Amino acid sequence: MTTETPPRSTTTDALWNSRFLRACRREPVDATPVWLMRQAGRYMAEYRSLRSRVSFLELCKSPELAAETTVFAAEVLGVDAAILFADILLILEPLGFHLEFPKGDGPVIHDPIREADDVGRLRPLEDVGALGFVYEAVGKIRAGLPGTVPLIGFAGAPFTLACYLIEGGGSRNYQRAKTFMYSNPGAWNDLMTVLVDSTAGYLNAQVAAGAQAVQVFDSWVGSLGPDDYRRFVLPHMRRLFQMIDPTVPRIHFGADTGSLLELQRDAGGDVIGLDWRVELDRSWERLGPDVGVQGNLDPIVLFAPRDEIARQARRILDQAAGRPGHIFNLGHGILPTTPVDNVRALVEMVHEFSAR
Amino acid sequence: MTTETPPRSTTTDALWNSRFLRACRREPVDATPVWLMRQAGRYMAEYRSLRSRVSFLELCKSPELAAETTVFAAEVLGVDAAILFADILLILEPLGFHLEFPKGDGPVIHDPIREADDVGRLRPLEDVGALGFVYEAVGKIRAGLPGTVPLIGFAGAPFTLACYLIEGGGSRNYQRAKTFMYSNPGAWNDLMTVLVDSTAGYLNAQVAAGAQAVQVFDSWVGSLGPDDYRRFVLPHMRRLFQMIDPTVPRIHFGADTGSLLELQRDAGGDVIGLDWRVELDRSWERLGPDVGVQGNLDPIVLFAPRDEIARQARRILDQAAGRPGHIFNLGHGILPTTPVDNVRALVEMVHEFSAR
Repeated sequence: MTTETPPRSTTTDALWNSRFLRACRREPVDATPVWLMRQAGRYMAEYRSLRSRVSFLELCKSPELAAETTVFAAEVLGVDAAILFADILLILEPLGFHLEFPKGDGPVIHDPIREADDVGRLRPLEDVGALGFVYEAVGKIRAGLPGTVPLIGFAGAPFTLACYLIEGGGSRNYQRAKTFMYSNPGAWNDLMTVLVDSTAGYLNAQVAAGAQAVQVFDSWVGSLGPDDYRRFVLPHMRRLFQMIDPTVPRIHFGADTGSLLELQRDAGGDVIGLDWRVELDRSWERLGPDVGVQGNLDPIVLFAPRDEIARQARRILDQAAGRPGHIFNLGHGILPTTPVDNVRALVEMVHEFSAR
Repeated sequence: MTTETPPRSTTTDALWNSRFLRACRREPVDATPVWLMRQAGRYMAEYRSLRSRVSFLELCKSPELAAETTVFAAEVLGVDAAILFADILLILEPLGFHLEFPKGDGPVIHDPIREADDVGRLRPLEDVGALGFVYEAVGKIRAGLPGTVPLIGFAGAPFTLACYLIEGGGSRNYQRAKTFMYSNPGAWNDLMTVLVDSTAGYLNAQVAAGAQAVQVFDSWVGSLGPDDYRRFVLPHMRRLFQMIDPTVPRIHFGADTGSLLELQRDAGGDVIGLDWRVELDRSWERLGPDVGVQGNLDPIVLFAPRDEIARQARRILDQAAGRPGHIFNLGHGILPTTPVDNVRALVEMVHEFSAR
């Protein structure tokens, strides 16, 4: 993020001066901006009703429905940014893999990478057009959102995507993925290189289509210790961040990365996402003055009584101490059975408690 | 751990001067002691063969078989300490709950705590004799082990036990347990109080029966942020550590607790267990000079080629820098399909690389 003026036709003055984008640039705001990971999702009755008619992949691949879902959630919640409705695994199909989201189960990659040679099966995403439905959704969302609400595009980070490709789905310990990484460092680097190239192109196409910021989700990288991160992930993440359009803020999120924060900052990003296991003040101190922070309420606090939600929202805002550059969010995605009223109440609390 | 001389008849001079107990007291050793969490377990063919004949609970409840399993693993691996074969959930039966380990699945508590009133169902473990089979196993193990190999007793920490009681088994997010904690702080404190009293009695009875050290496993506490730990866990853990026989070293282990280390140290323990997500040197610095550390190899490194295992073992030993008070271990338990030869090789490497 290097420019001093609105870089793109899609980023109007109103968007450029929104709370969210100002906070991404660590500029003062009238109240702390807030949005919530998975804010358009299964906890909403409207979403469940839609999903009773279309599958998850159909929803992701329909620009109309993805746009409707995104815009509706942002409006209902009164949040300061919308995030594209999509899934980090969508990119795996044009890379050459057979992806499925079975009902009630986690995603399955039917032809996972198991041997070093399997990496050769990856088709680099040279023509980002294979994900045209995503860019079309981005355009429709941008057109559907109020002119003051920025849109965040996103992608999965290469480590997290590599874990899915090697495990063939979710995993408890990432035993296959890490064993592959330790046993085939050359093939691992080849795999990560293709994933970085493809992801950078994918994110930049989202920006070109109308996203005002991007978030990179490294959801599983917290399974690594610092030494492994340094050897197997950092160089690739650094390259990814160097390749992303520098005219938009880049949010770098990882779950359970309390031991990796400095390394993640070194890898790149204008804003570092924090999960609830870390203290926001102490973490920001470790990260230093050159990045903003996003987070970090435990998603399970949204199941608690209102006074507990208020207490924890205040604690986080107190830890940020009004310092420019804080974006309020959860520490991870909203859980499927979260009460919607509590989510709305949280958004109001954040605005009220932080109003200057 | 306050005495200067062997405290118990079961802790002979040879045991008192063993590498493991010397390291627990932060005294110099000829080589870094090593043992491995779940070192007697499913990765061993002998264990699987035994389990084809008896169920997991039958094995735990047979002092002969539990002793045989414990002693065999310690001998085969050449480790510097044995750990009682048992399960952290065994205590839940005498507390009044119906515990089952279904084949191929995680443990199930059939009558979990769901409402605040359910806490009244807990029967405090006033007569620790209900777990007599454990103490009998401890006696048999002590008799069966070489006179130079200390025996570690153990128990689950109250937070982890409370999670199991409320969730009714394992959990991904501890949604029920945390929601209970936030919504019923009074009942939560009652629950934790009974668990602390019962666990202290259970551990002290293990020491009386022949254990030279104890480890408290807070396997799930890493799901909490520091503020929640301070409010809902720390006072209880502090009381637990105050109640444990002070003549034996107490190891305080938690998984995924990189953000909680100082608080865990404040709660108590002579040795703090570290998982692989943290750097041993940096963590020990945070913990200060008054505790030892145990850890912290990623269990998945045991699936890697030998040179990678050696590299990571050396890194950890280098981070400990020969400072008295390091016990080598994994960052969490050995995984079921770990190659036994790699485990044995690791034990030899630790001894060889650290020999002074």
